Amino acid sequence: MTYCCALRLKDGLVFVSDTRTNAGVDHISVFRKLYTFGVEGERFITIQTSGNLATTQAVIGHLNNHLELGQEPNLYSVNTMFEMAELVGQTLRKVIADVTQDTHNHEQNNYYCSLLLGGQIKGSEMELYNIYPQGNFICATEDTPYFQIGESKYGKPILDRALIYEMPLDEAVRCCLISFDSTLRSNVSVGMPLDTIVYEKNSLHIPNGKRIYEEDPYFRQLSKQWSDTLRRGLQKLPIPTDDYLD
Amino acid sequence: MTYCCALRLKDGLVFVSDTRTNAGVDHISVFRKLYTFGVEGERFITIQTSGNLATTQAVIGHLNNHLELGQEPNLYSVNTMFEMAELVGQTLRKVIADVTQDTHNHEQNNYYCSLLLGGQIKGSEMELYNIYPQGNFICATEDTPYFQIGESKYGKPILDRALIYEMPLDEAVRCCLISFDSTLRSNVSVGMPLDTIVYEKNSLHIPNGKRIYEEDPYFRQLSKQWSDTLRRGLQKLPIPTDDYLD
Repeated sequence: MTYCCALRLKDGLVFVSDTRTNAGVDHISVFRKLYTFGVEGERFITIQTSGNLATTQAVIGHLNNHLELGQEPNLYSVNTMFEMAELVGQTLRKVIADVTQDTHNHEQNNYYCSLLLGGQIKGSEMELYNIYPQGNFICATEDTPYFQIGESKYGKPILDRALIYEMPLDEAVRCCLISFDSTLRSNVSVGMPLDTIVYEKNSLHIPNGKRIYEEDPYFRQLSKQWSDTLRRGLQKLPIPTDDYLD
Repeated sequence: MTYCCALRLKDGLVFVSDTRTNAGVDHISVFRKLYTFGVEGERFITIQTSGNLATTQAVIGHLNNHLELGQEPNLYSVNTMFEMAELVGQTLRKVIADVTQDTHNHEQNNYYCSLLLGGQIKGSEMELYNIYPQGNFICATEDTPYFQIGESKYGKPILDRALIYEMPLDEAVRCCLISFDSTLRSNVSVGMPLDTIVYEKNSLHIPNGKRIYEEDPYFRQLSKQWSDTLRRGLQKLPIPTDDYLD
């Protein structure tokens, strides 16, 4: 399984992905699911992947191949983030169509994957897209400033309660990491290390990002302090009235 | 969908169930999924249900029918909670076998349901069982003092982080209600009102339980205070080091 989360906020974009892939519980590997592209000062692009690993790697492979060979259209030639979402969606649909042409209908979704695409092109706004296996997509808004793909349920409550469009990036990173920590604790199919990218609006800078390993002191402190926050918070909640115990 | 949660702790048992059933998004109803049985001073029993509503009501119907007609074995005649789990499991298996006898294999799980059974018989320990559609079951322990059935993922992180076997009952109730509040906010297929039962160890008293409606002032206060706890807790977490933002 996988968990990827992406935020499009007032001040920038935040992306976090886990790296665990599994084919059965006894075949676990580490694979990157967060890819960064871009031209410094002109455009910044991040793609996150969830689903069949061969499919996601084929999509990234085709996108890279087009860039290397200068074939049009490609990630650096499209004019808008919308055109980029169309390009990535079409690439995804084509990969799935190729691999499923001899497959029974009910087996097709074994080859599916979902993608998150976020970025900014000079002179335009930042955009964040959730791209489905069918190649169509939806766009994040101020009302719904985040998308999740993969094992999303464990980490959703903290986002639903705390995340707002106006949240500063450093606080949003903490919110996202807590969402991951909760998922990691409750589901072994999501695993460390985590890949993170934080992009500041209009910077048009391609960040290096950070890989967070199991022993990362900042992440461990965050996790421990959050557990303490919850335990203490629980104790401070008002005590149930007597009729709860009747 | 449904969310039911049951705890078996040092000091007693806690049960919370939602009441929403849905056949499609335009056919939503309120049905009780938490049933209490017992003989004051001799045995206390709670059953929670998740899955096909006709199946769950048939199981409860057969168990009640046996009690009314005095047919053996029944909930009040079995000697141990283990025998009770076997009785309930066999009843469930029989109901599913009846309704699926003319059904294709891949449609059988439309008729499945899962049950939680908890209680205490005089002279014995409290027990809590998670009973599967196949009629087999597992038993809660000190290591794993809680079970969930239905839409369990949203509400699992708070239980995994905060719940321990030694937790006092009033704190455990709060923990459970937060788990429900998180689920209610993130998934519309789980809905108010909630049914709660708190049983004190060795009391052999059949509690009335409490139904919590949308406008319940205690639950609203809990929910609001918890959101504040999380938002303030998030702000107090250590700020990410600069390399997160590179």
